[in-house]
Amino acid sequence: MIEVEFQILIRKNGKLFLRSSTVKLLREIERRGSLRIAAQELAYSYQHTWDIVNEINRIASQPVVIKQRGGIRGGGAKLSAYGHRLLDEFNSIERTVQTFSKKMNAEINF
Amino acid sequence: MIEVEFQILIRKNGKLFLRSSTVKLLREIERRGSLRIAAQELAYSYQHTWDIVNEINRIASQPVVIKQRGGIRGGGAKLSAYGHRLLDEFNSIERTVQTFSKKMNAEINF
Repeated sequence: MIEVEFQILIRKNGKLFLRSSTVKLLREIERRGSLRIAAQELAYSYQHTWDIVNEINRIASQPVVIKQRGGIRGGGAKLSAYGHRLLDEFNSIERTVQTFSKKMNAEINF
Repeated sequence: MIEVEFQILIRKNGKLFLRSSTVKLLREIERRGSLRIAAQELAYSYQHTWDIVNEINRIASQPVVIKQRGGIRGGGAKLSAYGHRLLDEFNSIERTVQTFSKKMNAEINF
């Protein structure tokens, strides 16, 4: 069985900004309110998640993820309003691509 | 400037079968009639192109690239009829995705 799949890449000024794997992390941060727990859920190292988050914040030139220090559990993290908007927009693109992909897979003739 | 880009992946029975980089190689083989010259054009090692071609032929379960031994230049290669069909189909998908991508980029709101 032959299938077409589409990977979504979002570039900002030519630089890779968001892709499925980074968006997966943003979703997990939103859900868990913690970078450490998000990292555990995705089986990423804590350092790796920090690197991804710092890179996203740097390219965005405004915070996407806001780190919250202290508190009872410590090390919390949440999405900024801009981060939420990015996630909503990516989710919307993903839904459109899924519809497009279904249509495409019905039409291909390999 | 934020842009959405789509990468096309073709899977056969779940396995990665074709993507832009492998299709680029198939196009070059078609154009040059030689694996060695195609490899040079793409700055791939000769061994790497062999590995890609063998993997494509294996997953396709029929020849996509036909190697021609001997002859004046030696080591020629060409696409089979099935290889040509794959390429035509991929080109057609790529054109549709380009149109979709333009529309998408006009609509995004990051």
